[in-house]
Amino acid sequence: MAIFSTLTPVFLAVLCILIAIIFKNFKKSEKKPKTDSKPPVPSRPWVDEDLEDDTEINPGEDDEELAESEGDVSHVPFSLPRYSEAEMLHRSQEFYALMNGRRSVRFISPEPVPRDIIENVIRAAGTAPSGAHTEPWTFVVVADAQTKSEIRRIVEEEEEINYKLRMGEKWVTDLKRLRTNWVKEYLDTAPYLILIFKQTYGMHPSGKKRTHYYNEISVSISCGILLAALQNAGLVTVTTTPLNCGPQLRQLLQRPLNEKLLMLLPVGFPSEDATVPQLSRKPLDDIMVFV
Amino acid sequence: MAIFSTLTPVFLAVLCILIAIIFKNFKKSEKKPKTDSKPPVPSRPWVDEDLEDDTEINPGEDDEELAESEGDVSHVPFSLPRYSEAEMLHRSQEFYALMNGRRSVRFISPEPVPRDIIENVIRAAGTAPSGAHTEPWTFVVVADAQTKSEIRRIVEEEEEINYKLRMGEKWVTDLKRLRTNWVKEYLDTAPYLILIFKQTYGMHPSGKKRTHYYNEISVSISCGILLAALQNAGLVTVTTTPLNCGPQLRQLLQRPLNEKLLMLLPVGFPSEDATVPQLSRKPLDDIMVFV
Repeated sequence: MAIFSTLTPVFLAVLCILIAIIFKNFKKSEKKPKTDSKPPVPSRPWVDEDLEDDTEINPGEDDEELAESEGDVSHVPFSLPRYSEAEMLHRSQEFYALMNGRRSVRFISPEPVPRDIIENVIRAAGTAPSGAHTEPWTFVVVADAQTKSEIRRIVEEEEEINYKLRMGEKWVTDLKRLRTNWVKEYLDTAPYLILIFKQTYGMHPSGKKRTHYYNEISVSISCGILLAALQNAGLVTVTTTPLNCGPQLRQLLQRPLNEKLLMLLPVGFPSEDATVPQLSRKPLDDIMVFV
Repeated sequence: MAIFSTLTPVFLAVLCILIAIIFKNFKKSEKKPKTDSKPPVPSRPWVDEDLEDDTEINPGEDDEELAESEGDVSHVPFSLPRYSEAEMLHRSQEFYALMNGRRSVRFISPEPVPRDIIENVIRAAGTAPSGAHTEPWTFVVVADAQTKSEIRRIVEEEEEINYKLRMGEKWVTDLKRLRTNWVKEYLDTAPYLILIFKQTYGMHPSGKKRTHYYNEISVSISCGILLAALQNAGLVTVTTTPLNCGPQLRQLLQRPLNEKLLMLLPVGFPSEDATVPQLSRKPLDDIMVFV
């Protein structure tokens, strides 16, 4: 008992430290569930014009937006050109045939393409719907040879690492059949590179942040229209998402912090010896269910 | 000291309990950082054909995919119809004008639309590029009146709650100018509802899961092409994302667990008294940067 008696001050001290540690841990684990689990009544708003993605919603910072809202916009009558049933059928067949001729092409000719055409396809992309009509896209068109080379250097450096170190064996095999690797000659040869940035938030004139709901899905829809416009104009591209290059490319192109690279599209004519993997598309019955 | 001496067995017991608690907490907090913070070498694969989203990657479950891979696919020559410069310019202008006539329309006529046309626009949507050519989309076309009513009931029930309870005042104001509320008459009147599901993973014949990289972005691109195809055929829609209805609608339509509702598009002719909010689109200079 004598040993215990002399040790008690030590025990007390240890006890105090332990209690302090427990309190600290307890506080931490109290915080966790709040960020991890969903609140019973989610504050995420409902949207009618667009779709779920990684929208950065900072309710606290947006409080003043209410006062700056454009208010009730007036409505105007809407009509479309009305085609006959035969015309509709013909147009829908023709459009499908046009789209079905599209392939992801990695062999792009250095032949120049008039800038007007690129401007028109980007205008078309800009007609896409977006969450609460925020139009959260920036299309950076790179024609400058030196900037293209710089982009190639950044992309190839990162993708060689991705290819050699980061990817699972499975993924390499998945891509092997597409004959894809980290050498991206098209980044130099294509007359244009279109880098599509999503604006994760916007800015009010007052300098306050404006939430861009569903920005990733909106920009992806816009990219779908861009692909259709390119194919319609007789140009090719390949939809790429260079991993880990976003921040470097954003800095190179001097884009602001609210913009994040979503896609990089090299654009031009197919080179004369262009090839594509012999893949087929799923038949209608595999992608459509009729109820 | 006598008091402390008699208390030491109690202290010892308390100490043991505290140590046990600390060890438990320590284990927990050891696990947390692994899931929260990014690993120095991310195992996320790099992809050349598509784009970042909430892909469900379960490396453990996919190990056997390697053996089942299709291997090296043969490549075939690729060419496109070559237009003159004047033709390219004309086509790109026409396509922009066509797309620019598109608006999100919430007033849809009950007038029937031939099924062939719907099939063609979905065929067109199915030509979109996708991560590693997984084609991770299912288009459920609902023409059945009873199913449409059931969908309307589910969507309106959830959206009334969203509108009244879950949304911030700011968001209500953001949508007010679009004259949007939770009553969705078009869900009954439109001849078709197209519900677009993203397949978060696929299945190998062996029953093993197949990773669908970038499925959300792929399906969104496909939706962009679908919107273009509908506009080209003379039909209207509005891109909606009914919040919180996904699981109920998935069950109603008997879709498998790997499918998640991304969008719901009511499709038809605009009603005679259709109106749209008087919004303008950003000019080219606001969406394009030329380098």
